[in-house]
Amino acid sequence: MENQIPDVVIQRLPMYARALARLAQQKVYVVSSFYLGEQLGITPAQIRKDLSYFGRFGRQGTGYNIEYLLGRLRQILGLDREWGMALVGMGQLGHAIVRYPGFTNQGFRIVAIFDHDPRKIGKEVAGLTTMDVTELSSIVKEKGIKIGIVAVPSAQAQGVVDTLVRCGIKAILCYAPASVQVPDGVKVRSIDPLLALQSMTFYLRDDT
Amino acid sequence: MENQIPDVVIQRLPMYARALARLAQQKVYVVSSFYLGEQLGITPAQIRKDLSYFGRFGRQGTGYNIEYLLGRLRQILGLDREWGMALVGMGQLGHAIVRYPGFTNQGFRIVAIFDHDPRKIGKEVAGLTTMDVTELSSIVKEKGIKIGIVAVPSAQAQGVVDTLVRCGIKAILCYAPASVQVPDGVKVRSIDPLLALQSMTFYLRDDT
Repeated sequence: MENQIPDVVIQRLPMYARALARLAQQKVYVVSSFYLGEQLGITPAQIRKDLSYFGRFGRQGTGYNIEYLLGRLRQILGLDREWGMALVGMGQLGHAIVRYPGFTNQGFRIVAIFDHDPRKIGKEVAGLTTMDVTELSSIVKEKGIKIGIVAVPSAQAQGVVDTLVRCGIKAILCYAPASVQVPDGVKVRSIDPLLALQSMTFYLRDDT
Repeated sequence: MENQIPDVVIQRLPMYARALARLAQQKVYVVSSFYLGEQLGITPAQIRKDLSYFGRFGRQGTGYNIEYLLGRLRQILGLDREWGMALVGMGQLGHAIVRYPGFTNQGFRIVAIFDHDPRKIGKEVAGLTTMDVTELSSIVKEKGIKIGIVAVPSAQAQGVVDTLVRCGIKAILCYAPASVQVPDGVKVRSIDPLLALQSMTFYLRDDT
């Protein structure tokens, strides 16, 4: 089924789940696609279309049952379990990532950290010991790691991504400002502040 | 003109510029939409359509003149100048951001850093002195800052964004895992590793 669902749709689902979770916290039980759309800057029609890929959730005029829809979205996205992650690159950025509090309470846990620099290998950071990247393959297997995080400089990014792919990693979060290539069946999402900035200055040009 | 161009198109332009710059570095002078598309995972038709918003760049069968197209894209995106940025939030993440080497060589310079914590105010980080957020407005004016970076915890993100907007900031890069609201005419791009992760686990579910 998933091959028929556009990736842009999949990328919006976590936004829906987050908005629904916030509403549930506020003890709201039902929400319209109109209200949800307003919160997220997405048209109600788009929301209804996105969700229709996965079944019929809302009823005309009554809106979505938040608890049910949230539960289904978490199931669909695989958020109803914990995911172990391997982080490669223990520079300043890697340190910030491993200490980032937002992952763990959402079921994403960095369980192994790596670097190739002998001065960093063996160092403890946030309760984990930095390991040599050469150990990546065995640790990934041993710990059942499914997700890799790349926090190395641009020039090394493709090499690290290739290594992760060879180790069987199918999902990669890349913090290096480089566009990396992966084979079919592997997903990469890039955290690229530079692209984000460069697409905002377009709107600032006449403002100076 | 810019109101007619979809924001998704604007968001792709920096990717084109980056790919073209890399080709230019490799002393390549001409490129087809087909090759560019392959590099970026975007269809050639989409690339041609995106660029057609801004004029006629390529000729059927000959491809794009890289130097010319890159120059025009940099102009269109406002990348032919330097942009001063204010960073709010000097925790671990703020420290990583201010030391991130990828901004400056691309014309984006953090020129002022802020926090509201008295223990952080006055501290020097990467040659900048952490200032009280209450000084934001005057510093933004004084230094002609156009872009704000938000690196505070989720719960404080909307408040900081509101403050930046009141100070006249029209472009905000938000690292907090929260969806923040801005008035028309202000752009926000979110750096949200959690959403990225949550949209990849969809593809991993059957893999465990």
